[in-house]
Amino acid sequence: MRLLEDLNWRYATKKMNGQAVEQAKVDQIIEAARLAPTSSGLHPFKVIEISNPAIKEKIQPIAFGQSQIVDASHLLVFAAYDEYTKERVDAPFLQQEIERGLPQGFANDYKNSLFERFQTQTKEDHFNHAARQAYIGFGLAIAAAAELRVDATPMEGFNNQLLDELLGLDKLGLKSVTILTLGYRDEQNDWLVNLKKVRVNKEDFVISLN
Amino acid sequence: MRLLEDLNWRYATKKMNGQAVEQAKVDQIIEAARLAPTSSGLHPFKVIEISNPAIKEKIQPIAFGQSQIVDASHLLVFAAYDEYTKERVDAPFLQQEIERGLPQGFANDYKNSLFERFQTQTKEDHFNHAARQAYIGFGLAIAAAAELRVDATPMEGFNNQLLDELLGLDKLGLKSVTILTLGYRDEQNDWLVNLKKVRVNKEDFVISLN
Repeated sequence: MRLLEDLNWRYATKKMNGQAVEQAKVDQIIEAARLAPTSSGLHPFKVIEISNPAIKEKIQPIAFGQSQIVDASHLLVFAAYDEYTKERVDAPFLQQEIERGLPQGFANDYKNSLFERFQTQTKEDHFNHAARQAYIGFGLAIAAAAELRVDATPMEGFNNQLLDELLGLDKLGLKSVTILTLGYRDEQNDWLVNLKKVRVNKEDFVISLN
Repeated sequence: MRLLEDLNWRYATKKMNGQAVEQAKVDQIIEAARLAPTSSGLHPFKVIEISNPAIKEKIQPIAFGQSQIVDASHLLVFAAYDEYTKERVDAPFLQQEIERGLPQGFANDYKNSLFERFQTQTKEDHFNHAARQAYIGFGLAIAAAAELRVDATPMEGFNNQLLDELLGLDKLGLKSVTILTLGYRDEQNDWLVNLKKVRVNKEDFVISLN
């Protein structure tokens, strides 16, 4: 099975060789995240694509000096909505109406009850919910990179607040959640490249109620 | 590109036809989730696989009566750790030592600083972090089902607390986060099957800093 082969091929690359990833491949990786299913179709996250060396250099200290930040050719920053505003809840339903040729307000009851529920929650609840959706896209981007044999390092290890300020995400109503670095492994100098992939054993992972 | 084709093929199936998904395929879908990368390799989630009709019937009212719960042949409940205990942080590092033949305590400094950070956080923080990791596996399971042309419905719409009680997850230190129903679409009776897939436009999704 292709996906399982891809997931077994990939690893969290620790040292990249500086070679640039072709833009067409970066676009396909981002497309996988765009196609992610999300709760009620809200798609409450965005991807910030960064290849500018000066910006990557500024991000490196924010990410505890990790070398992949500058040795990767592209960084994808996944950033989630900081809250669900009325406009953000309305937009995907309006888009569905238009693209599917549905009657105006076809899903108003559903949409209104969704928005009412969000209004009983805090901004932090909204962000936590949106961040989870971003991780679906993050997972799919990781799978896409692996299919294309592009090396990628999933990262949570950075100062989110400093990154948000640097990229101006706070002004866009976004908060960073993860980074995916894209590049090619430096096989000679990556300590992790030849180590066995370790995952929880199947018998400890699955609980069967059949 | 295979993954993009698969993601364009899939949709959140609203009506399933009751046909059973072969166990080998269910196993491959779960395997994709097991291979998910997670923060510090903690893999803080499990999958509860349910095909027992009596249990599915009990879950249906907890999931607001959604028909896929009983028409799907298998439900995969993704459940995340309710907290990071010392044992749960130690276990993956010990497993790495053994499987990779590394010196005992090779990553003690990293592991201890990770555990110390968790100790400054609340149980809710732990769960939120663990839940996000579960969504990576959830995304990969969705992709695996699509590759196998197994229909799947990602669901957040259920009463988490009631499901946790029904499945005894609270006693295992787990909290449910999502359900993935697995089955085959009922093309005649699914209102969504022929509607256009709608996603955020690329220009609204990507912010380029190149």
